[in-house]
Amino acid sequence: MKAIVTVMLKPGVLDPQGRAIGHALETLGFEGVGDVRAGKIIELELAETDAAKAKASAEAMAAKLLANTVIESYRVEVV
Amino acid sequence: MKAIVTVMLKPGVLDPQGRAIGHALETLGFEGVGDVRAGKIIELELAETDAAKAKASAEAMAAKLLANTVIESYRVEVV
Repeated sequence: MKAIVTVMLKPGVLDPQGRAIGHALETLGFEGVGDVRAGKIIELELAETDAAKAKASAEAMAAKLLANTVIESYRVEVV
Repeated sequence: MKAIVTVMLKPGVLDPQGRAIGHALETLGFEGVGDVRAGKIIELELAETDAAKAKASAEAMAAKLLANTVIESYRVEVV
């Protein structure tokens, strides 16, 4: 199964990468761009065939390695 | 409207970050992890209220700045 883990900075945590992207878009002439947040997406190919187990496994990976849960939140989707 | 741009390396392009994540997961004891691909996700708050126009605008931003279309592919979702 394929698990997709999306990791974003928690609301309220300063996102300098997002800010930089926002400024760059403005410089390029794009208008009406408000808040920009940048995050990571990790696609994992898992041998597990049970969707619930695959999701639990990917959630454990996210909590342990992929996300820094102090400042980041994550969500896991199994496809 | 909110546009979510997901940028991934194209299939076949070596993904060292994904490889490193895969090895780290293995070292941590996670089993059955196959291919791992790492990408970026950018959430844009747009002033545009028309969904089609917002999507077109976000696609232009992705093509011009957010993705390197030589090695990366992107998809845009408007929510």
